[in-house]
Amino acid sequence: MLVTEQNDINFTQSDQRINELLHALREIADLEALQALTDWDQQTGMPAGAGEVRSYQAATLQGLIHERWTSPRLGKLLTELESVIEQSPFTNADRGLVRQARRVYDRSTKLPRQLVEEMERARVISHEAWVQARAHNDFASFAPHLERLIGYQREVADHIGYRENRYDALLDLYEPGLTTREVERLFAPVRDISISLLKRIQASGKKINTSFLQGDFSEAQQKLLAEKLLKNIGYDLVRGQIAISAHPFTTSMGSPQDVRLTVRYSDYLPMSMMAALHEGGHALYEQGSASSLLRTPVAGGASMGMHESQSRLWENAIGRSEAFWRGQYHLVQEVFPQSFQQVSVTDFARALNHVEASLIRVEADEVTYNLHIIIRFELEQAMVNGKVAVEDLPRLWNEKYRTYLGVEPDSDANGVLQDVHWTSGFGYFPSYTLGNLYGAQIYSTLRRNFADFDQRLASGETAFILDWLRERIYTFGAIYQPAELLQHVTGEAANPQHFVQYVTEKFSKIYEL
Amino acid sequence: MLVTEQNDINFTQSDQRINELLHALREIADLEALQALTDWDQQTGMPAGAGEVRSYQAATLQGLIHERWTSPRLGKLLTELESVIEQSPFTNADRGLVRQARRVYDRSTKLPRQLVEEMERARVISHEAWVQARAHNDFASFAPHLERLIGYQREVADHIGYRENRYDALLDLYEPGLTTREVERLFAPVRDISISLLKRIQASGKKINTSFLQGDFSEAQQKLLAEKLLKNIGYDLVRGQIAISAHPFTTSMGSPQDVRLTVRYSDYLPMSMMAALHEGGHALYEQGSASSLLRTPVAGGASMGMHESQSRLWENAIGRSEAFWRGQYHLVQEVFPQSFQQVSVTDFARALNHVEASLIRVEADEVTYNLHIIIRFELEQAMVNGKVAVEDLPRLWNEKYRTYLGVEPDSDANGVLQDVHWTSGFGYFPSYTLGNLYGAQIYSTLRRNFADFDQRLASGETAFILDWLRERIYTFGAIYQPAELLQHVTGEAANPQHFVQYVTEKFSKIYEL
Repeated sequence: MLVTEQNDINFTQSDQRINELLHALREIADLEALQALTDWDQQTGMPAGAGEVRSYQAATLQGLIHERWTSPRLGKLLTELESVIEQSPFTNADRGLVRQARRVYDRSTKLPRQLVEEMERARVISHEAWVQARAHNDFASFAPHLERLIGYQREVADHIGYRENRYDALLDLYEPGLTTREVERLFAPVRDISISLLKRIQASGKKINTSFLQGDFSEAQQKLLAEKLLKNIGYDLVRGQIAISAHPFTTSMGSPQDVRLTVRYSDYLPMSMMAALHEGGHALYEQGSASSLLRTPVAGGASMGMHESQSRLWENAIGRSEAFWRGQYHLVQEVFPQSFQQVSVTDFARALNHVEASLIRVEADEVTYNLHIIIRFELEQAMVNGKVAVEDLPRLWNEKYRTYLGVEPDSDANGVLQDVHWTSGFGYFPSYTLGNLYGAQIYSTLRRNFADFDQRLASGETAFILDWLRERIYTFGAIYQPAELLQHVTGEAANPQHFVQYVTEKFSKIYEL
Repeated sequence: MLVTEQNDINFTQSDQRINELLHALREIADLEALQALTDWDQQTGMPAGAGEVRSYQAATLQGLIHERWTSPRLGKLLTELESVIEQSPFTNADRGLVRQARRVYDRSTKLPRQLVEEMERARVISHEAWVQARAHNDFASFAPHLERLIGYQREVADHIGYRENRYDALLDLYEPGLTTREVERLFAPVRDISISLLKRIQASGKKINTSFLQGDFSEAQQKLLAEKLLKNIGYDLVRGQIAISAHPFTTSMGSPQDVRLTVRYSDYLPMSMMAALHEGGHALYEQGSASSLLRTPVAGGASMGMHESQSRLWENAIGRSEAFWRGQYHLVQEVFPQSFQQVSVTDFARALNHVEASLIRVEADEVTYNLHIIIRFELEQAMVNGKVAVEDLPRLWNEKYRTYLGVEPDSDANGVLQDVHWTSGFGYFPSYTLGNLYGAQIYSTLRRNFADFDQRLASGETAFILDWLRERIYTFGAIYQPAELLQHVTGEAANPQHFVQYVTEKFSKIYEL
């Protein structure tokens, strides 16, 4: 079992090689933090006209970072360290550091610079093509771009290497060690329970009232509510900042000392409120890294899936539970007295769990969300492996929506063209569902550990959860691999049954199935 | 006479050495833009707890920039170019580029790295000491820091070199080619007219009503007014952004494409409104650089003094004139109808020109402002030249305030300790008054060029002024030295009589002297 011991979070600075490695990685961390800052600035305030000059700055920075990640001296140092790292006096922190550095070093050296640059150009161009194709509901104009993007993804996979399935190389970029076979094993029960639960909910004929979530909520008041909720779950604003952007995101500027998030506002209150809890989950994870990991590639999260597990845990398992709102609903009523004085906490919490099969992934509830992901996973791995032709994609997409969700896109814009992700790469989508599975598994352990979980939550407490997560997960950053961390924290390997059980119990109760 | 010809703003890219120089300077410009971005972030939104990690990022960036500015290859290239740069086919832009690069190269190579690092540490430590000393009105605790800072400034001057006066080396850092002797020549008539005007104004017994400038002006409305005024004078928000910071400033992220400014809000309306026009002047200058100068050290302003001339021109000569407000006052009345419906434009403009001898530089009017600067100039050059001991400073400071302004500081906190500048270096203060002199000289030329200047301004037009300034000054960035530029634009060398005449006429009229 992991506990926060010196061995787990401290580097062996007495070793000259570890010291040299840290020196090199810290400079890189500073440059990557500047990269995060330019990105933050670009999404939260940069003048529209500054795009050209910013692209030069980004390229200069990217060049310096790439130079450092491909330095032969770094490669030699890693090889030297790998031959001794399992022995004394090296710590788990040292081992994690070398492993993470090796991952990025390999990725940086294995991919030819020319391919990376071509892909970056293709990303920019195909993003613009996607925007146009979506606006005009014209898949045919995007198809040649998608074809080229798939070609690049295959090249990437071939350069990186894989054992069984070309798609494994892409999965590994986001979730170290993950394979297509493992994703299929994990996703199968999720697909089955989601389809069957959705059918039972639809058959129940029960309708949940959500009308009060829509209204004339001022931006200033929504911001105030988001801030109060974030403070209550333990987000530290002395080391954070909340801003507005078109798409909510969380970013850490190289350290737990500077972890910022964004939300967006609309007349549908959960848009900002639940985004705050979701990004808050990411932010708590980032702020929780041990300070000894500052300016190293093991500060932050263990993987995209582990990161998503924490945003989903705080947003859904905790943030959509009635117990949580019993402790926090007074904030909503204080900030918007006219809109919520007449709404009970039970009705409020239930409205946040309204289930409806829809065409759009980002609006999906906990029952249907994973079906959107599974469709994307099935199609993208088939494309990478040459089993699905781009021209057949819209038809297959619509078929899967009909089969899994019982709805069929009225247009490609609301179908195969709805997500931007493919312009940036393949292999990312599964992280979302992995996050839901890891999250449910960790949540189940949490509840076992605290017999009075709901009572404490209902009394307004959340610190006991944060403390527990920090001690067992957050403090370690990326020192441990996600599978290892999950095993240590929950006592078993990734097991989709926790999600199956969680979603079944929760929605059977809400929909009285 | 300068006109915007190809020769003035284009580099000879066909020359391989110019091309290599541009390549090197553009990478540096990108890194310096990132430095400007970190600074902007730090002053407008960075979490308070991120100070430590940001200091590492800043040091890494500073190290990369210093490495590039001291590269032997750059030095060799500059020497090669200097031997041919006056000949064909080289342009004025090429010559300006080489000159500006040489300035920074020399400064970077002449100052030992150790001295620069020690000074940076001294700056941080003495800034903290200054904050404490000012809070506790305790000059004695700051004195040893000031002693050390002066020592560093002497070392800097000795490394850089000078002909006549050690202080000249420091002046040159901010105003290329400026000497103590020249400052004395320029400042003498300014000191005399300021002292005599102030006495005549005080003797007149006339009081100007300013009460309506104080009030409960909401921040959102002040922001709206600042934005409207800035738009009206031609500040381009597509290439700009307005934020809040403790001390208003303007910064350009390496290009006319990204020029941002800040203001601050209080219950005294001019605090935000006039800061907007002042920073707006700086911003118009920065946004006006020819796009061919992008990512080079000749984008931006010719010197600190020339920059200040533009902020002062827009803030004071234009922005505190009745003619300007005849064209813009409706904005103030629209944004704050209750406060200003009963105030005439004449009374409003007059209130902005209220003269009062005070202890605090940043609150000073156009008549007394330069006296604050002259006192600082006289004392700091005497300190650098060892003619004034630190221990005598408070006494001398107070004496000068009594003699020049007829007021005496009630405390060192409001006296010798009021400005932060000395912790960052000496030689900067004169730029402020130089700006006032250059500004008045350019303003006088402007008025000669447009017989209907006041009428056009009163009708709400300002574009004719901006166009004229852009064509003659802004577009050239730092290609020409400030003295050369001033000569070309106004037809004569720096001449303080323009300021003397401007300030005498303006305040004789306002105070009916």
